[in-house]
Amino acid sequence: MIERVVHCTKRPVGILGVTGTVGQRFVECLVDHPWFEIATVMASERSVGRPVDEACRWLLPGEPPSSVGRMTILPMDPDAIDVDDAVRPIAFSALPADVACDVEPAFAEAGYAVFSNASSFRYDEDVPLLIPEVNADHAALLASQRRRRGWSGFIVTNPNCTTTGIAMALKPLDDAFGLRRVFATTMQAISGAGYPGTPSFDILDNVIPLIPGEEEKIGRELRLLLGEMQNDQVVEADVVVSTHANRVPVVDGHTICLSLGLERPASPEEAVAVLAAFRGGDSVSRLPSAPERPIVVRIEDDRPQPRIDRSAGRGMTVSVGRVRRCPLLDLRMVVVVHNTVRGAAWGSVLNAEALVESGYVT
Amino acid sequence: MIERVVHCTKRPVGILGVTGTVGQRFVECLVDHPWFEIATVMASERSVGRPVDEACRWLLPGEPPSSVGRMTILPMDPDAIDVDDAVRPIAFSALPADVACDVEPAFAEAGYAVFSNASSFRYDEDVPLLIPEVNADHAALLASQRRRRGWSGFIVTNPNCTTTGIAMALKPLDDAFGLRRVFATTMQAISGAGYPGTPSFDILDNVIPLIPGEEEKIGRELRLLLGEMQNDQVVEADVVVSTHANRVPVVDGHTICLSLGLERPASPEEAVAVLAAFRGGDSVSRLPSAPERPIVVRIEDDRPQPRIDRSAGRGMTVSVGRVRRCPLLDLRMVVVVHNTVRGAAWGSVLNAEALVESGYVT
Amino acid sequence: MIERVVHCTKRPVGILGVTGTVGQRFVECLVDHPWFEIATVMASERSVGRPVDEACRWLLPGEPPSSVGRMTILPMDPDAIDVDDAVRPIAFSALPADVACDVEPAFAEAGYAVFSNASSFRYDEDVPLLIPEVNADHAALLASQRRRRGWSGFIVTNPNCTTTGIAMALKPLDDAFGLRRVFATTMQAISGAGYPGTPSFDILDNVIPLIPGEEEKIGRELRLLLGEMQNDQVVEADVVVSTHANRVPVVDGHTICLSLGLERPASPEEAVAVLAAFRGGDSVSRLPSAPERPIVVRIEDDRPQPRIDRSAGRGMTVSVGRVRRCPLLDLRMVVVVHNTVRGAAWGSVLNAEALVESGYVT
Amino acid sequence: MIERVVHCTKRPVGILGVTGTVGQRFVECLVDHPWFEIATVMASERSVGRPVDEACRWLLPGEPPSSVGRMTILPMDPDAIDVDDAVRPIAFSALPADVACDVEPAFAEAGYAVFSNASSFRYDEDVPLLIPEVNADHAALLASQRRRRGWSGFIVTNPNCTTTGIAMALKPLDDAFGLRRVFATTMQAISGAGYPGTPSFDILDNVIPLIPGEEEKIGRELRLLLGEMQNDQVVEADVVVSTHANRVPVVDGHTICLSLGLERPASPEEAVAVLAAFRGGDSVSRLPSAPERPIVVRIEDDRPQPRIDRSAGRGMTVSVGRVRRCPLLDLRMVVVVHNTVRGAAWGSVLNAEALVESGYVT
Repeated sequence: MIERVVHCTKRPVGILGVTGTVGQRFVECLVDHPWFEIATVMASERSVGRPVDEACRWLLPGEPPSSVGRMTILPMDPDAIDVDDAVRPIAFSALPADVACDVEPAFAEAGYAVFSNASSFRYDEDVPLLIPEVNADHAALLASQRRRRGWSGFIVTNPNCTTTGIAMALKPLDDAFGLRRVFATTMQAISGAGYPGTPSFDILDNVIPLIPGEEEKIGRELRLLLGEMQNDQVVEADVVVSTHANRVPVVDGHTICLSLGLERPASPEEAVAVLAAFRGGDSVSRLPSAPERPIVVRIEDDRPQPRIDRSAGRGMTVSVGRVRRCPLLDLRMVVVVHNTVRGAAWGSVLNAEALVESGYVT
Repeated sequence: MIERVVHCTKRPVGILGVTGTVGQRFVECLVDHPWFEIATVMASERSVGRPVDEACRWLLPGEPPSSVGRMTILPMDPDAIDVDDAVRPIAFSALPADVACDVEPAFAEAGYAVFSNASSFRYDEDVPLLIPEVNADHAALLASQRRRRGWSGFIVTNPNCTTTGIAMALKPLDDAFGLRRVFATTMQAISGAGYPGTPSFDILDNVIPLIPGEEEKIGRELRLLLGEMQNDQVVEADVVVSTHANRVPVVDGHTICLSLGLERPASPEEAVAVLAAFRGGDSVSRLPSAPERPIVVRIEDDRPQPRIDRSAGRGMTVSVGRVRRCPLLDLRMVVVVHNTVRGAAWGSVLNAEALVESGYVT
Repeated sequence: MIERVVHCTKRPVGILGVTGTVGQRFVECLVDHPWFEIATVMASERSVGRPVDEACRWLLPGEPPSSVGRMTILPMDPDAIDVDDAVRPIAFSALPADVACDVEPAFAEAGYAVFSNASSFRYDEDVPLLIPEVNADHAALLASQRRRRGWSGFIVTNPNCTTTGIAMALKPLDDAFGLRRVFATTMQAISGAGYPGTPSFDILDNVIPLIPGEEEKIGRELRLLLGEMQNDQVVEADVVVSTHANRVPVVDGHTICLSLGLERPASPEEAVAVLAAFRGGDSVSRLPSAPERPIVVRIEDDRPQPRIDRSAGRGMTVSVGRVRRCPLLDLRMVVVVHNTVRGAAWGSVLNAEALVESGYVT
Repeated sequence: MIERVVHCTKRPVGILGVTGTVGQRFVECLVDHPWFEIATVMASERSVGRPVDEACRWLLPGEPPSSVGRMTILPMDPDAIDVDDAVRPIAFSALPADVACDVEPAFAEAGYAVFSNASSFRYDEDVPLLIPEVNADHAALLASQRRRRGWSGFIVTNPNCTTTGIAMALKPLDDAFGLRRVFATTMQAISGAGYPGTPSFDILDNVIPLIPGEEEKIGRELRLLLGEMQNDQVVEADVVVSTHANRVPVVDGHTICLSLGLERPASPEEAVAVLAAFRGGDSVSRLPSAPERPIVVRIEDDRPQPRIDRSAGRGMTVSVGRVRRCPLLDLRMVVVVHNTVRGAAWGSVLNAEALVESGYVT
């Protein structure tokens, strides 16, 4: 089946796995995007051939944008899609890890710039794990990725939702004071578990002190994100991370309590100054999905809170507060990040914008 | 006003501040007590002279026990109550700290053994801060308390609800391995804030990363509870404690994530063995409110959870689980304690039982 | 496979579908039962041969009673179980409707008295839909059931959890004043949807105004329960029922707002008198699982409430309150019933007790 | 104290009671209003003289708009405020009823057009209770109001949050089929109780089947809103209303289950057609705060839901769904309305816009 792609004045993009929650979030953040236009929507066999608003139960507030709702779902096969040769095609992947590991390479091989939420390739040494404000320079891995794998396209990943919030809050502190040790206790929203995800019987009037695999992911991804490019490789940051991951009855927005050990001691005031001044690099401010500020520092003594602060900067700003001394390490603080916006689909879109801006997607 | 106390075959006890949530919990745990019988109920001027079931809105499930519901509320004045001279009168105090600081000494001076939930005297060096399974020997402070203050009675306090859970879980580990450093992140139930307490608008679909004063209390009380009696004084334990205290949308049951640094390294298996073997001293098992085991170790990887584990041992058992290595210190674990049972009224009652058993209340 | 049943001094009973939530509730209410003893636990192929505490994740507070936890799960095949011929074997069924429709008849045919929570046979004209306090006389259907079907055993069902609460509250009013019209809006707990049941993403900070099939069930079952036995048949009550069924973020306890049209007008005071006097028949009070009172009338103006009143009478008492005039019909009131206790497993056990008491189970 | 009002190119407006939740909502919806500009903010003595962001704890997401945060709070005294004589001054009142009853008349007397959320004057026969899409013509009461009371200004009120949703859903059905009887069971969000409002201890894992005064208000206001202007008076609609009002653990968005009796029977399809076609009058569509459609009809069988549908039309659209036959009356349906947007401040602002548009505010 060869489907003709709608002609776009903007750069056409495809969504892999459009029917799930992350896929729907991709629709939400791409439907009025100034640079990108949803040209193809793809999903598993079960949904192929059906219009989006029939094939998927819409889980976000309101209803699917009518332009996308009527689009026919295509198979996840790069050969089945006719693309404009003049521009590099972009695919956003909302696939689960076990599907992504086959589908994403196929699209990368076919020339697509794949921006993936899946964890399948996050830890491969030639695949950038990227947050534009934190480690934009890691995009340089793409040269060796394409060389080694022989792909005309490539794969770029964004980190786990929780790591995204932690890494953004810690980047300016690492730059200024040298980060050495991190204690992190997370209180994570149920939307992070996907759909149907956590049964209400498990979480109402309750806390679940386990999110399988999460504690290991956070440490590993944080060391990668704060790592340095040396000889075309990322050298992991020398940071020891201890994490307790919990699920709490909150819809959206992860809250993380941090205690930090620094190389060069810093007072809370110095830390706040550095956090408040953080802009994440010059180039980021020009990206359409970038918030006015990547970090907002709250000075109220009971903030940030997930329900109140998750939507700061339309969900793209990380809120930091309660910056105070730690009796054991140097500093304590609290971070809130919108897990399904900054920590998921919109994080991928920001990555795509950054790579278009920096010329990696031509 | 002199009221004649009902004749009791059990030891008669009074409740100070019967109308509040902690006062109601005292009613609940004393109404069928095998050793104690509620003889007097006392509250502030506003309620004096009214029957309990008229003066207070019952906040616990069901309704007030009819025997107590019909009792007339007396003023909080030891002279207004006629007591049997043969036995030392007992008063349980559910008063707020600012009221307790005047009322409790008046009762102690008048000869009462006062068992208090309030924080007013918790940190006085001659007032025992007591958990029978943890530091029963601290009751020895009472001699100097009565000598210094010239009281015929005395005051014994129990710790903050959160500290209670932490101290019980850490006592056996301190004994076995020497506790040196504690990271604690708490996720505390809303019932801990009293009534009306936390507005629903603040906590539904939310986490509040502040409980005023809590973080300092936990460290201070933990060092006292794990302290040693030397020369009639408690020498605080040499433990550094760093705490993040959070309120979460859970009705009852505090959950605490702990990372521990020990003097003598222990494996998770060794820690579990020590925790599972803990009985809290021989004498405790004879107390009517003591649970079969003060600590239960959960082996499921997602336990303990507050809704499921708070009622272990009728709310008197602390549940510990997820015992595992910590990348930064030695061990990580999760603790659940029923904050309004073990961590409040019932903790006071257990203290009273322990002091009756050990002869301090004659 | 023929397994030898443990010898019981009490009457041995089996549980069909022991691994699910209702099955676990059966374990909970049978483990210390004065008349019955769990002799066999049965489940689907997947679990057969494994001990209960390995085969099922325990969803209720605490842990499975150790005596049951170690029992081996048997197949749901009456021929595979060796029973004592002297007494009629009893099986409690926690099966889903699509499995129950095959398994329950097999056990009834093999001589079992089957007490079922499933809806598969609820509406068959020869199967009693029973609440002992409401329609104990409908057990008379069993004669024709066994005759028509040629079974040596039989099937008795209990109604939907919501209907149970409504029928119990309305029975005394129907007897006294003649019930003609019912408006019912339900606010149902998530435990009613089984496990995993309602995803937390669907119900946190939300109301779902649909429970598939529920509205029809309530009307139909209410007319059956209030129906009269005439010539060995149940003649449905002439009551028109209009229902709105909603799911709300409550763990346990269904709340139902009722407006009632009566044949003979009654004042709120008259209705309260009738409700408070209701005992559900002489024989019920002798049953071990029967509460002291089937109905409690709350006089506080904001009761009953599910969290506070669901456990009245250990979950077996229905709470009724806010009895007041209705501008359109005659009376308005609010009902709370514990959906997973009275409205499920424990309702079946009460039915079994009633039929043992009345001689149907010999 | 005479404060000079900032010069505005838009029409300057004042907010009475700016520090509370409704006052904050007024700030939120007026801060970028195309016609109005916040010129004065007023509150009780306690706050006078302080800047807004110091005097009030901001309860809405994010933080107070900086332009308003820095404004100094003035006393609620019309003489203390210097206004431009050329235009009629407008005051939005977020006052509680007991304060509104004195303050609002003072402002009306001083020439202000007062748009009030308070219930103090809602039921006065010369005070319009107004929803522009429902009964814009009731503004004609203002002539007699000013004549009788001798005011140069006037008071216009908007209804209770729940009534607003019900009245909007029922208006087109009343017009088309004649509304005669209404059963309404409400499931109301906790934000409707103000701040601090409902204690979390009362509502977590619970339903409260009482909202004092609410049931009476809904019936009375609905009859007024659907009433007809005759001889300069509103003749109340002949509709019998029976209501059950409940509080549920939802942050924002009231859900209402309705059963309706009509004069001329209508099928669900006919009702849906009428609801979907409703525009609320020609003039409304030109108002800046009016949503594209006052009513959206959901066709999914489990909608509307408060968390998903409350923000339809930026919170100004009422969602209606599950339109189906009623076994007792004619039709059943479910309505969701955003109680703190359409049902409160923003409803007042829409009223002001409507009266500016129609020339009542000159």
